[in-house]
Amino acid sequence: MPGSQGSWSPLEKGKALARTVRVSSACEKRILRGHRWIFSNEVEERLKEFLPGEWVTVVSGSGRALGVGYINPRSLIAVRLVGAPGQEPTRAFFRDRVEAAVRYRAACYPGASVCRLIFGESDGLPGLVVDRYGDVLVTQVTTAGMAAVEEDLHAVLAERLNPRAIVFRNDTGARQLEGLPLEKGVAYGSLSGPLEVDCHGLRWSVDPLDGQKTGLYLDQRDNREALRRWVQGKRVLDLFCYEGGWSLVAAAAGAAEVTGVDSSEAAVERARENARLNGLSQDVSFVRTEALDYLKRTPRGAFDVIVADPPAFAKTKSVLKQALKGYTDLNRRALLALKPEGILVTSSCSYHVSEQDFQGILLKAALAAGRRLRLLQAGGQALDHPPVLAMPETRYLKCFFVQDVPEFSRPFSASDTFKGGEES
Amino acid sequence: MPGSQGSWSPLEKGKALARTVRVSSACEKRILRGHRWIFSNEVEERLKEFLPGEWVTVVSGSGRALGVGYINPRSLIAVRLVGAPGQEPTRAFFRDRVEAAVRYRAACYPGASVCRLIFGESDGLPGLVVDRYGDVLVTQVTTAGMAAVEEDLHAVLAERLNPRAIVFRNDTGARQLEGLPLEKGVAYGSLSGPLEVDCHGLRWSVDPLDGQKTGLYLDQRDNREALRRWVQGKRVLDLFCYEGGWSLVAAAAGAAEVTGVDSSEAAVERARENARLNGLSQDVSFVRTEALDYLKRTPRGAFDVIVADPPAFAKTKSVLKQALKGYTDLNRRALLALKPEGILVTSSCSYHVSEQDFQGILLKAALAAGRRLRLLQAGGQALDHPPVLAMPETRYLKCFFVQDVPEFSRPFSASDTFKGGEES
Repeated sequence: MPGSQGSWSPLEKGKALARTVRVSSACEKRILRGHRWIFSNEVEERLKEFLPGEWVTVVSGSGRALGVGYINPRSLIAVRLVGAPGQEPTRAFFRDRVEAAVRYRAACYPGASVCRLIFGESDGLPGLVVDRYGDVLVTQVTTAGMAAVEEDLHAVLAERLNPRAIVFRNDTGARQLEGLPLEKGVAYGSLSGPLEVDCHGLRWSVDPLDGQKTGLYLDQRDNREALRRWVQGKRVLDLFCYEGGWSLVAAAAGAAEVTGVDSSEAAVERARENARLNGLSQDVSFVRTEALDYLKRTPRGAFDVIVADPPAFAKTKSVLKQALKGYTDLNRRALLALKPEGILVTSSCSYHVSEQDFQGILLKAALAAGRRLRLLQAGGQALDHPPVLAMPETRYLKCFFVQDVPEFSRPFSASDTFKGGEES
Repeated sequence: MPGSQGSWSPLEKGKALARTVRVSSACEKRILRGHRWIFSNEVEERLKEFLPGEWVTVVSGSGRALGVGYINPRSLIAVRLVGAPGQEPTRAFFRDRVEAAVRYRAACYPGASVCRLIFGESDGLPGLVVDRYGDVLVTQVTTAGMAAVEEDLHAVLAERLNPRAIVFRNDTGARQLEGLPLEKGVAYGSLSGPLEVDCHGLRWSVDPLDGQKTGLYLDQRDNREALRRWVQGKRVLDLFCYEGGWSLVAAAAGAAEVTGVDSSEAAVERARENARLNGLSQDVSFVRTEALDYLKRTPRGAFDVIVADPPAFAKTKSVLKQALKGYTDLNRRALLALKPEGILVTSSCSYHVSEQDFQGILLKAALAAGRRLRLLQAGGQALDHPPVLAMPETRYLKCFFVQDVPEFSRPFSASDTFKGGEES
């Protein structure tokens, strides 16, 4: 069972919220505006006096209680706020938070059996992510404070949603910053092998225990849906295709031809399996190769629609400059492979690359590729991954739909095919 | 007929593109990156030597042709680029641009009879806006350069779309900056009185000749569609309701109760007429009063969903500070009128208020109202109003869906109604 490594336990009565953490006035102001993190240099007390994962009350310089949260003396983010002053981390408390999260997802995607059920800070449960795949829940705990209450969380989830299994995927590198071990397993119920679930009106094979991440990249859900309108009868290229999410949505929406490219053999295998599940094997071909290599071999103007949804190039701020260069090169090559009037659906999931940075990247790539672009849509995370407005750190995904407008570079001429034109 | 006031005419053979305009190197760089405006202080020649609306070739300091466009010595935006070097403003040229615009809208909204057909720079036709309402086209020309070719544009539109009528609504104040008269009328075909058209699956009465603007506020189309998912069984308030766009979509999507508020008697009358057309008179009530006055009288927490879609508070940069204050006050009051977990759909159509400004406004309003907000969606202009990526000036609409998260201010308690929760 996970969670047993926490050095602090809420079960030791009288300990919860017994100690206070006093913060600087700049920090207090940020908290009052809705931010939920307290950095290590903003805490007055000696951090080493606290246990990793200990739940504490945060107070202002004047002693006013600002809220409760948990602390980790090892982490740059020393305290993450969770609730109002006096709120203890009881099962009743977690039950309310889970209930609110469930209620919100039912409004986002009525009747959907797959969704992100809990998205950390946005659901008032920092350090916790829960995805739902049919009757299986997949949890991920990234902080010592949540690890200390993990059993309670599993119990609440089991009670509220009555799942077949709860799988814990505590194998993300972020845990090491908190001094937590990497581990995965089944915390509740039983599960063996992959599942089949419905999403986008299609069937997907998901492997909660052994798959990459927790399975589908659900943060792109709404953007994938938005792809539908642009692909009918078109040649579509899907770069970094993973399990085939964009590819299969494009094929189902009537694309004439879809090519998915990924460097991982396992990803391509799963993508092919997903195509088979939906009877789309004839409509999509998957190629195991590096996306950039594929683009280098692609003739100019070969595709009507190109999706470029790479993994984060800038996982830390220190590599931002290099990442910007990487994104620019990728988008330049993708634009070269695009037909006139073609559409590029391009993403960055690096928080450190701001929307403004990303727009700059695209302008640079367009200049280098000799293209002019219209912005059709500037999408973000799917509805079930809502950012906290006061925490830019929770808004990480940018997905731009841009269209080449061949005005200058290649004026329209009478020889253009006016297919698809609306009749009056 | 409009257009006859242009002091320059493309019909005088040999005059088109006969003269060149040399621009600064900073300007050249901006143009190469995709911008299309040349400001009066960036032109080397004496502006007074040019005629208003004259089509010219723009060249770099070294004499390299950058493109063609039209000039107006009176305007701060001296030249607007339209095409590639050598491209003359012929009917064939306009035909190609119109064809591309029609083709794009057919992809955006297949089968739709209402849309923005031409959106200025984004369709390579700066100074021209064309809306389609069924078989009637409504045009708006805002620059002398487009006024000079207005007859050609009408002829091309008539030929391509075979409309019942083309109405010109050249009565926007922006024309005065270009030295153009304010005028409106029927340029082609005939029309008397309002039309009925379909949009959002509803019927709308639109008055192209005598209505406010060209009719419906089509730039909010996609955002109105996105409202549907949040209103079922809810109490909805629609501030600045105009002709009832948001109100009727909410009612049709199953809102329990909808109140639309507008200060204009004519707007409220048309909104009521639109409700009647759709058999929704029992579901929506419209109130003629100022939005702020209405909010001042509204009890706290009275509505589940509030739409605030005001006219531009900052029409010029000089009033930005005052506008930010106005938006903050409006949003603060709207948040106070919102139930816990309620949703505020709030817009700014002021280009001078950036997305970052707008986010700041909402954070300030939330702080003042004691609310915490999640960002569900950061919407922009509808697909048929695509910004030019390199021209931030063409991206003006911000429409944020934010949700109150009552975590801190009012912890969830057992007495909360857990209606709408998803069953496992």
